[in-house]
Amino acid sequence: MATVTSELTAKDTEFLRELGQQLRVDSIRCSTAAGSGHPTSSMSAADIIAVLLARHLVYDWSRPENPNNDHLIYSKGHASPLCYAMFKAAGAITDEELLTFRKFGSRLEGHPTPLIPWVDVATGSLGQGLPIAVGIALAGRYLDKLPFHVWALCGDSELAEGSIWEAIDKAGHYKLSNLTAIFDVNRLGQRGETEYGWDLDVYRRRAEAFGAHPIVIDGHNVEQVDGALARARQYRDKPTIVIARTVKAKGFSEIENKNGWHGRALPPDMAERAIAQLGGERHFTVFTRKPEAADATPASPPPAETVDVPTYEVGSKVATRKAYGDALVALGVLPDVVAMDGEVSNSTHADEFARAYPDRFFEMFIAEQMMVSAAVGMSVRGYRPFASTFAAFLARAYDFIRMAGISQANIRLTGSHAGVEIGQDGPSQMALEDLAAMRAIHSSTVLYPSDAASAAKLTTAMADRSGVVFLRTTRGAYPVLYGPEEQFPIGGAKVLRSSDQDQVALIGAGVTLHNCLAAADMLASEGTAVRVIDLYTVKPVDVGVLREASSVTGGHLVVAEDHYPEGGLGAAVLEALAEDPSPPRVAHCAVRGLPGSGKPEELMEAAGISPGQIAGAARRLLSAEGVEPAGSAGPRGSGGVPSSEGGH
Amino acid sequence: MATVTSELTAKDTEFLRELGQQLRVDSIRCSTAAGSGHPTSSMSAADIIAVLLARHLVYDWSRPENPNNDHLIYSKGHASPLCYAMFKAAGAITDEELLTFRKFGSRLEGHPTPLIPWVDVATGSLGQGLPIAVGIALAGRYLDKLPFHVWALCGDSELAEGSIWEAIDKAGHYKLSNLTAIFDVNRLGQRGETEYGWDLDVYRRRAEAFGAHPIVIDGHNVEQVDGALARARQYRDKPTIVIARTVKAKGFSEIENKNGWHGRALPPDMAERAIAQLGGERHFTVFTRKPEAADATPASPPPAETVDVPTYEVGSKVATRKAYGDALVALGVLPDVVAMDGEVSNSTHADEFARAYPDRFFEMFIAEQMMVSAAVGMSVRGYRPFASTFAAFLARAYDFIRMAGISQANIRLTGSHAGVEIGQDGPSQMALEDLAAMRAIHSSTVLYPSDAASAAKLTTAMADRSGVVFLRTTRGAYPVLYGPEEQFPIGGAKVLRSSDQDQVALIGAGVTLHNCLAAADMLASEGTAVRVIDLYTVKPVDVGVLREASSVTGGHLVVAEDHYPEGGLGAAVLEALAEDPSPPRVAHCAVRGLPGSGKPEELMEAAGISPGQIAGAARRLLSAEGVEPAGSAGPRGSGGVPSSEGGH
Repeated sequence: MATVTSELTAKDTEFLRELGQQLRVDSIRCSTAAGSGHPTSSMSAADIIAVLLARHLVYDWSRPENPNNDHLIYSKGHASPLCYAMFKAAGAITDEELLTFRKFGSRLEGHPTPLIPWVDVATGSLGQGLPIAVGIALAGRYLDKLPFHVWALCGDSELAEGSIWEAIDKAGHYKLSNLTAIFDVNRLGQRGETEYGWDLDVYRRRAEAFGAHPIVIDGHNVEQVDGALARARQYRDKPTIVIARTVKAKGFSEIENKNGWHGRALPPDMAERAIAQLGGERHFTVFTRKPEAADATPASPPPAETVDVPTYEVGSKVATRKAYGDALVALGVLPDVVAMDGEVSNSTHADEFARAYPDRFFEMFIAEQMMVSAAVGMSVRGYRPFASTFAAFLARAYDFIRMAGISQANIRLTGSHAGVEIGQDGPSQMALEDLAAMRAIHSSTVLYPSDAASAAKLTTAMADRSGVVFLRTTRGAYPVLYGPEEQFPIGGAKVLRSSDQDQVALIGAGVTLHNCLAAADMLASEGTAVRVIDLYTVKPVDVGVLREASSVTGGHLVVAEDHYPEGGLGAAVLEALAEDPSPPRVAHCAVRGLPGSGKPEELMEAAGISPGQIAGAARRLLSAEGVEPAGSAGPRGSGGVPSSEGGH
Repeated sequence: MATVTSELTAKDTEFLRELGQQLRVDSIRCSTAAGSGHPTSSMSAADIIAVLLARHLVYDWSRPENPNNDHLIYSKGHASPLCYAMFKAAGAITDEELLTFRKFGSRLEGHPTPLIPWVDVATGSLGQGLPIAVGIALAGRYLDKLPFHVWALCGDSELAEGSIWEAIDKAGHYKLSNLTAIFDVNRLGQRGETEYGWDLDVYRRRAEAFGAHPIVIDGHNVEQVDGALARARQYRDKPTIVIARTVKAKGFSEIENKNGWHGRALPPDMAERAIAQLGGERHFTVFTRKPEAADATPASPPPAETVDVPTYEVGSKVATRKAYGDALVALGVLPDVVAMDGEVSNSTHADEFARAYPDRFFEMFIAEQMMVSAAVGMSVRGYRPFASTFAAFLARAYDFIRMAGISQANIRLTGSHAGVEIGQDGPSQMALEDLAAMRAIHSSTVLYPSDAASAAKLTTAMADRSGVVFLRTTRGAYPVLYGPEEQFPIGGAKVLRSSDQDQVALIGAGVTLHNCLAAADMLASEGTAVRVIDLYTVKPVDVGVLREASSVTGGHLVVAEDHYPEGGLGAAVLEALAEDPSPPRVAHCAVRGLPGSGKPEELMEAAGISPGQIAGAARRLLSAEGVEPAGSAGPRGSGGVPSSEGGH
């Protein structure tokens, strides 16, 4: 155990112990009332939270939006009884509300969510709170330049998650002395002992090796806790990790340090005995130090500048990823726009923002989980983060994106190098499931532009869009389709070719839109009237444009996507019109096999999404109903799989 | 730099240097021929691979299936030119084939895949090769009990991935002295210097803190490399990490250690100068030591036992997750069935297997990326792994599952606690996007049983299913619907109620099937003939059963799922019938809002997937077409969103 000095008087000590007992009792009371929850995991950290709340946290509970407030994240989100007991002790909620824990309609959910004004982000998927705390601390140190401190309470089980070490690594790299992680080492996980039990030295060595100041303490000794938290706030060079030896269910001898009590509320009779042993109910309200008036407040942002959206000459070849970089630089006039990348900024083109606004760009290296967490943390501080990497590698952070949806965080994710179109690098680098994955995120927006003009406009629109916004960009350079006057509202789609006589509509996005246009030329030359739709918003999809296309063509739609067949563009179209009185027939060109390496055109042909194959799908759709388009070779194949021989 | 002893003669040394130069020259030749690739990242590790291939790797190139072969994984998959140059040096491929690198149809793809018989798994998403190597080493030490060694070549950029530290942690925890990771610290990433450049001491301290023996060397000094690899193989207590200081593009002075040359093939003129500087082409073939005859071979597995699939009394309430545990225990008679879990085995019920077969159960703690990697590694060794955690937390390993699809690995993943049905724990613990995400994995199978009987049968069927197989289980206990004689072939669906007069079909899986049955009772009491379908295979879906339901009901389908609306059961049904001459109308009950905490029934009602709401959707579908079912209150709402007031 470290020798840490504390200035506590005997009276202070006595009060802090009492407060810890109150937090324990309340953790038990609310979880027993709910019939579920994690009282024992709360009891291990109760003394730590008591000392933090009463002596170190700087927070104005009546003004959670105060920019000088500290941040406290329960990375061990299952300690929600403790979190809510703390809110009661702070006077933020009543005892009555505390007892609504986990009940339908209560904001005190099983794990904390930002429905509660004093909760920054949803936690409960372990290993995520600390990385997000790092994001908040990055903002505090490099953007806000404010003296607030960021505290993260971590369980010892979650220290097995790699994301925890990505976070500590970045905190060390960026010298985040405004961050303190507290490891509540109670030795017991859900199903038994953790990997390292009470071997605190393992954590100490790891924390040190990853760039933090470790302080090892007894987490039930309030003097030691006080000394450690005080010292943590004083360091100026590195983050601090307080490694606290604690006891699960501390204070109730029947189950103290016993396995089998994770995630279980105490039955009423046990709860009664526990509360008695803990000294009964208490209802202290603790004064938390508010930020001082003298604390700096962030300079009020200058009036929003006009963003000068880049434009491109129609017909010139520009990659959508390049347009993303251009537009990001243009957005840089907005002082709250920040960007980060996973060490591939010269591919995603985020490097252009990095050069133009180095103070607002954060290199996260190859740590996508941390990158997304940093974006979430910066959104907590009110910034507008744009995070980018290859779309395939955003899969690495999928659980973080899922939780960002639950947090209702406002983050923008750009994934480049989508689909087989990337060519020679092969399948490991190809995003072919990202549209399905991103569409299924709560409140997400999914954008997939086909040309530089729309990519630039959509990137700009992302800045004002809330929720998780995903932009899919393409590796190769393709012709610019739209002039500078064209608008691309999110939720819209573009009809590029149309007539009242259209027999079939070809629907694409990204590279397949270009293939749809080429297919339309083929079909037009055969006398088939074709509608072409640029579905640049995949979610929320433009139901009106799709419905009209279905209506005009008698329900003949072809969807082509550089993505596996499940859950992507095809599903977006089908879901949109599923309940219509007369749903369309949809022929679906998608990547059905496992792609390899080759030239983009070779791989698109092999996948069945080439212009000729899209035209073939349209012919099949028409001929199968007896509408014989000129030049048709009759029905080919059967079922939903496009035949591999196309029209050219 | 460490002092490591080596037994090399001057002649050996000279040969190894020459071999290193050959590997460099060939890396340049094949990538220049391809016009893309990563020669400079190959050149930094060429001396390491030369020494490993000629002196330490034990491998029979003519029998890659030899169980005593070592394993060598290029965790830095972009060093594929080096990997393929090594194959040539080993005599496994010809120089001619080497020059097909990255060309369409060549098995020498941009990043290695197991299309090549000497490649175990696909790499190229950084930070995955080492965790998989840990899985192979786990199998070697604890299952095969064979003396083969596992080598993993890592780049320094990927050391920022948390998954690398999950892997080293587990290798240390499980004392995998049969594993050696080699860090090729060439200082330069894709866009510039790595986080720690040539500060090898950072890596040394981290490797040590995470439980490995670090050996720091000059990666271009073949004596040091030789000594380090020899020592690595001798340790008996811990894994070894060889931390090698190397130079990117080593050997070609024009670009040696220069930024801006990541992932770029040399133009032909530069390649010519480089090859000249490296001493020209060489075409050595190296003899690799084969496993000795005296090496142990794994005991031939006993004749496959008959699996005694558990059965349940119809009507009794049993959770599907419990049936998973029961069936897994039953599968234990098959000696190649192994299991692992992410520290929630008492929730997933994998703990029953752990108790019955402790030698074949691996606790991976809360490290889902490592858990999936361990499964992949064990599948490389021919085992049949079953890995389980909450379905929501499989999202943590999504990129690993994506890559497992590309590797065509045979792994079984079980995700419990799906959907809002879990109740009080709240949204962080609810999988609501897993069906969409898992369906979009290449060659995946997605199973979602509704009762214990089907769950047990499907778990058993998973053992014989190749590819990535996902089973979604439910938290709560629901009535057993099927008797012991019922069969559940993968790809099938069950029609639970039907007649030739059915007006509408209700399609569910998991908990919503029970709600569909209740809804069918409501509708039947109103005089509406209803078909009910248990879509226990979500992928590949039973098109025949769906098509017949659509045909009989005149295209009236209701799909109900405990999942967000995008990409799940609804999309599976729509995609299956999309191109049919007369596609069905599909009313879709799914979780459209962000759920909170509450009782399962409260949350299902709030989400719009209760029996009453499913019945309401059916009435809406029928009434909107003028088919007025008895008891209908007429059309409600519009569009695809079910109204929140249901039929009760």
